[in-house]
Amino acid sequence: MEKANLFYAQSGGVTSVINASACGVIETARKNRDRIGKVFAGHNGIIGALREELIDTNRESARTVAQLRQTPAGAFGSCRYKLKSFSENKKEYHRLIDVFKAHNIRYFLYNGGGDSQDTANKIALFSIQEDFPITCIGIPKTVDNDLPITDNCPGFGSVAKYVAVSIKEAGLDVASMCESSTKIFVMEVMGRHAGWIAGAAGLATEQEGDAPHIILFPEIAFNRDKFLRKVKSCVNKYGYCAIVVSEGAQHKDGTFLADAGNRDAFGHVQLGGVAPFVANMVKDELGYKYHWAVSDYLQRAARHIASATDVEQAYAMGKAAVEFALAGKNAVMPIIVRNTGRKYKWSIGEAKLADVANVEKTMPRNYITRDGFHITEAAREYFSPLIQGEDYPPYKNGIPLYARLNKVLASKKLKAWRE
Amino acid sequence: MEKANLFYAQSGGVTSVINASACGVIETARKNRDRIGKVFAGHNGIIGALREELIDTNRESARTVAQLRQTPAGAFGSCRYKLKSFSENKKEYHRLIDVFKAHNIRYFLYNGGGDSQDTANKIALFSIQEDFPITCIGIPKTVDNDLPITDNCPGFGSVAKYVAVSIKEAGLDVASMCESSTKIFVMEVMGRHAGWIAGAAGLATEQEGDAPHIILFPEIAFNRDKFLRKVKSCVNKYGYCAIVVSEGAQHKDGTFLADAGNRDAFGHVQLGGVAPFVANMVKDELGYKYHWAVSDYLQRAARHIASATDVEQAYAMGKAAVEFALAGKNAVMPIIVRNTGRKYKWSIGEAKLADVANVEKTMPRNYITRDGFHITEAAREYFSPLIQGEDYPPYKNGIPLYARLNKVLASKKLKAWRE
Repeated sequence: MEKANLFYAQSGGVTSVINASACGVIETARKNRDRIGKVFAGHNGIIGALREELIDTNRESARTVAQLRQTPAGAFGSCRYKLKSFSENKKEYHRLIDVFKAHNIRYFLYNGGGDSQDTANKIALFSIQEDFPITCIGIPKTVDNDLPITDNCPGFGSVAKYVAVSIKEAGLDVASMCESSTKIFVMEVMGRHAGWIAGAAGLATEQEGDAPHIILFPEIAFNRDKFLRKVKSCVNKYGYCAIVVSEGAQHKDGTFLADAGNRDAFGHVQLGGVAPFVANMVKDELGYKYHWAVSDYLQRAARHIASATDVEQAYAMGKAAVEFALAGKNAVMPIIVRNTGRKYKWSIGEAKLADVANVEKTMPRNYITRDGFHITEAAREYFSPLIQGEDYPPYKNGIPLYARLNKVLASKKLKAWRE
Repeated sequence: MEKANLFYAQSGGVTSVINASACGVIETARKNRDRIGKVFAGHNGIIGALREELIDTNRESARTVAQLRQTPAGAFGSCRYKLKSFSENKKEYHRLIDVFKAHNIRYFLYNGGGDSQDTANKIALFSIQEDFPITCIGIPKTVDNDLPITDNCPGFGSVAKYVAVSIKEAGLDVASMCESSTKIFVMEVMGRHAGWIAGAAGLATEQEGDAPHIILFPEIAFNRDKFLRKVKSCVNKYGYCAIVVSEGAQHKDGTFLADAGNRDAFGHVQLGGVAPFVANMVKDELGYKYHWAVSDYLQRAARHIASATDVEQAYAMGKAAVEFALAGKNAVMPIIVRNTGRKYKWSIGEAKLADVANVEKTMPRNYITRDGFHITEAAREYFSPLIQGEDYPPYKNGIPLYARLNKVLASKKLKAWRE
């Protein structure tokens, strides 16, 4: 019998270590050539499967594959594309099975967040129904750290390290300037529904008075008066106030802070995110000079300052996914389990895709201080191990050396897909 | 005779390596204890001299002083405070001389940009007139790289490296997402009057198609139609378009792009900088989904990704300033001279403060491509050596280990200063 092939796809917003998972998948598959044929990667994620655009990873050298471990973003292309339910669009599921059949693909590894694991689970079920059973294994990925069951998500540790380092550095900058100039610094971070990234920035506070002084979480309803009082008290005590605000910070009624209904002269929605909004609020009410930053994609792509722990875990998840597939598991996802004991140790566990899909894990209340503006010791104990270690990429001419793939597509065997 | 003391002050916007210059000053002074007494550092720059708030650097251990080399921002505090001219405010100059006399300060080392060197020059002249001659030596510093005579400014190489690395990483992110999501990424960088920082981001383009695809310089009048055509052509060719915009990008009439006169519902000036402005323009005209980033202080404080060349030069400038002072020079500033030859080598030269003061060096036209949207080979040759090498700070618990000073003030000898 011809050896079955494996299809790997990246899904949703990328991270600085999702390619480390890809590296783990491909290297592990190559070590099991007796059982796995080719590894195809979806060109732009699951869209690549629908369009039969399958990148033949055999056309990438061992060196290039190894470089994936040090390369941020989705090297094969990712996508924001959610398959509809069976009842709504059975055609897509049939198409996937057709493509998988045509290329003898019996393993499907889906590297993404909750939505993606939901899709992988559906494909697993559907393929059995269609009498062409596909082994579907999820690989966790999200900077938001909001997947359930797993202790943390690959991608998060590195963005956590980036935001903690960044607010530490910018905090020192403001501290230098505050006597005669900028007194307020606001840094906006990702996390539309959960405050994990904002919380991790709190690690920069190593001693009383260190930045950040205030963190605004999506989990805590914004209280304007209380916030402004706190800002004023920080400026009085420390000379300045460094604020980290989650893009998902919201009012009691669930509306986002940044969505203030402001319009410009042409009726366009206000430019800028929540950082300028908060900075302006402080300026208007307290009169302090401010600066603000929105690092946006920079934070989730910052492979140059990735957490070594995160890189290692991302690789391990990719590797484990292949091993799970070869062990005959199905519709599961490897997860990170935090072992008990004072010293941080982790091992690989397993979760059912059905249990992972569409559940969002937010910051527990006991990770946030009583006043709602910072993180507790419990949160530090959780976050700190995840940012340990620096896994620097090699540099060439002062610029990080990131993988450049050939991205050779496998010959098409089917008719073009009509979207 | 009692050995004369030295006064060192940091001035203006800080950088990720200005403390490396401070380290060079203090370590070199300590090696010349036979000739230099104490090194005092101004608490918040020149303000510290006026207020007689002199940080006694003898109260910092050798280890802490060595850590300054790896610590971003202004460890002693900087300020935005420009001394007026003699005629306008002679009182301030008298006060400085009084403080210097009271603390036996005969050397004044001023670490700042053009304005600061103008001040240092005035103090040198005034002190002679007052019969208490102070040796005034400038130490160049500015992320903007806009000082004349010196080949480059300490502080610039590191911000250059940060922006090149950041747009490289974010570019890979957008490239992953563009098939089904974000097609436009705009990163705003510093440089209100000169495009050096924006230009350095161009180093990320190592091959055709690499980000950034478009750079908007203050030196090139913004042409909306030409810009939008270029954006469209990039999206058609590469699938996405990554744009770096200088905060100083401007229209033909000299008004800043970001100053669009937009007001919110309450009549406030539009929130947000030039990045959201440009991103929204593209969205409105071409309909592409966008993301934008404003790294603001993050870029100039990013010691974690400092250029080793920059750190080395910053230290060398501080060291040279002390050596100049001991050699009897006055009203001069050490500068970086690029030696001829293919391989980058630099040496230390010297410029008169009078020649440095208040002159702004902008990007030469031949550093910018004919279409105005990118950098030329000549620019690459200039920029590339400045970002070479990675001088990583040590880490503790996943966070960079930055110096924490004792900042013990010398006992005051004069009456309080009335501002």
